Amino acid sequence: MDMQRQILELKEQVLSRESLPVDISRYDSIVVAGMGGSGVTSLILSDLYQEKPVFSVMGYDLPKFVDKKSLFIAVSYSGNTEETLSCFEQALERGCDAVAITSGGKLAERCSDRIMVPAGIQPRSALGYMVMPLINTFLGLTDADRKRISDAIAGMFRRENEIRTHARRIVERKMLPVFIGDTSSRGVVTRWRTQINENSKLIAYSCFLPEANHNDTVWMANRSWPEKDITVLSGGEPRIEKRIRAMEKLTGLTFNRISHSGGVLERNFAWIAYGDMLSYHIAVERGVDPEDVSVLTRLKNEIA
Amino acid sequence: MDMQRQILELKEQVLSRESLPVDISRYDSIVVAGMGGSGVTSLILSDLYQEKPVFSVMGYDLPKFVDKKSLFIAVSYSGNTEETLSCFEQALERGCDAVAITSGGKLAERCSDRIMVPAGIQPRSALGYMVMPLINTFLGLTDADRKRISDAIAGMFRRENEIRTHARRIVERKMLPVFIGDTSSRGVVTRWRTQINENSKLIAYSCFLPEANHNDTVWMANRSWPEKDITVLSGGEPRIEKRIRAMEKLTGLTFNRISHSGGVLERNFAWIAYGDMLSYHIAVERGVDPEDVSVLTRLKNEIA
Repeated sequence: MDMQRQILELKEQVLSRESLPVDISRYDSIVVAGMGGSGVTSLILSDLYQEKPVFSVMGYDLPKFVDKKSLFIAVSYSGNTEETLSCFEQALERGCDAVAITSGGKLAERCSDRIMVPAGIQPRSALGYMVMPLINTFLGLTDADRKRISDAIAGMFRRENEIRTHARRIVERKMLPVFIGDTSSRGVVTRWRTQINENSKLIAYSCFLPEANHNDTVWMANRSWPEKDITVLSGGEPRIEKRIRAMEKLTGLTFNRISHSGGVLERNFAWIAYGDMLSYHIAVERGVDPEDVSVLTRLKNEIA
Repeated sequence: MDMQRQILELKEQVLSRESLPVDISRYDSIVVAGMGGSGVTSLILSDLYQEKPVFSVMGYDLPKFVDKKSLFIAVSYSGNTEETLSCFEQALERGCDAVAITSGGKLAERCSDRIMVPAGIQPRSALGYMVMPLINTFLGLTDADRKRISDAIAGMFRRENEIRTHARRIVERKMLPVFIGDTSSRGVVTRWRTQINENSKLIAYSCFLPEANHNDTVWMANRSWPEKDITVLSGGEPRIEKRIRAMEKLTGLTFNRISHSGGVLERNFAWIAYGDMLSYHIAVERGVDPEDVSVLTRLKNEIA
């Protein structure tokens, strides 16, 4: 299945009713270990869920404070990610309840409380399968909620011409793609950035408001290399919108805005769909293969 | 005092023996609110201290889960940062014990348990004054520890010729500065990036290992715009060093490495000194004023 079809599948994947086999009221905090396309699920979750702390672990080791009062969740599409397996072993040693979201590998062998997701696609193209068990569990979604998310994604995919125009501008002018989120879309801008890395084979930059008003705004006000294409993903919070207007006025820049409707769930998933499609079209315009991330596999083999 | 002298002051600032007036054993977690040059202190702390969770809040609102079992720390050099004041009020409403690190402003008026730092310099140049009360408190440093940190910083400042050469290369070739950290230097690479923003008026990019091996490595393996100057700040952990060697082999890139000695404390502060000085020399080479961040002040006035 080619990358564009994999991307379009997101609107079906988010209909997944899978939920983790846990009682979340029993835990003080949630620790999600995962890397890359699997790990970004923890950021997407923590933008939406703040009833308990969600710690994203992107590395080999759990922080010292993690103990059996934490629920441990390993997310690894392949089930063989060495960092995530290392965290899984540490979680068991510390007496944590551990669950997994995976398509197989050693994680599926070692962890009996798990959600199995379909195998055989690129990990980054299984985002819906991997993130929905988290969101269903912690946000208690209904079928109607999932349908609204799916419809919002489908609506964004219908704007493919607009997305292709955006991709062409970036490629024709050899611009650095810059994505500015807010505190409810940090996972989304991270997803955009990493999809540009893997699908488009380009570096991209992400930051978020209001923090970007304390540092990034300085480069925005000073014309310098490289040329940037700047997109702002704001949920419309009045204090943030005021900042965006002030930034445009003081820097003379005009930011891309992606219109949206609905609440934070629909919005964030619709934006993810836009970014996925943008990364695909940048690859097409550049003439690179969006699916090929063989260097990551070669790197895994090199260090094995 | 010009920016270079402000930067050199770091080696004296880290001798500060100030400590927060709290008993940390009484709290389940630590919540540090702060933005920009003040907020980065929380990232520097959380790289070094993992006995309890440290939450960095860079925005207007505390996460819902913050309650009176958390110690709340507001870090605002001016004492008038609107996001940090908003978090401070929320912390009081939730019954948190609250302490502050500030040079004055509304925060000094409203918060009686506070560390006062010297006023009249740029917030980003007061890093030592602001971060040492955190590190002294949570790591229990001695005078000898602080002396070693100060000596490591002074040693790095003696390498100014090497740093100037690095700055010249970036400016002459109009490169995008890229900084790759590891899980013990995330605060350091964030500091480097934001110092480049504010002092050099340039965009810069930071990421960290091993996460960068799941996405960024793809752009490294594909030559494309913009040209990058890539520096790796690794503490020497064998699994990370193996990854760096594999990355260089597979991508054909050569990364800058900044030699260092000593433990994580000396290393991280010496690197901060390098990045501060690098950002200064990039400004000089570009002919921009490293001290001028008037756009940030204008933005604050615009939204007030």
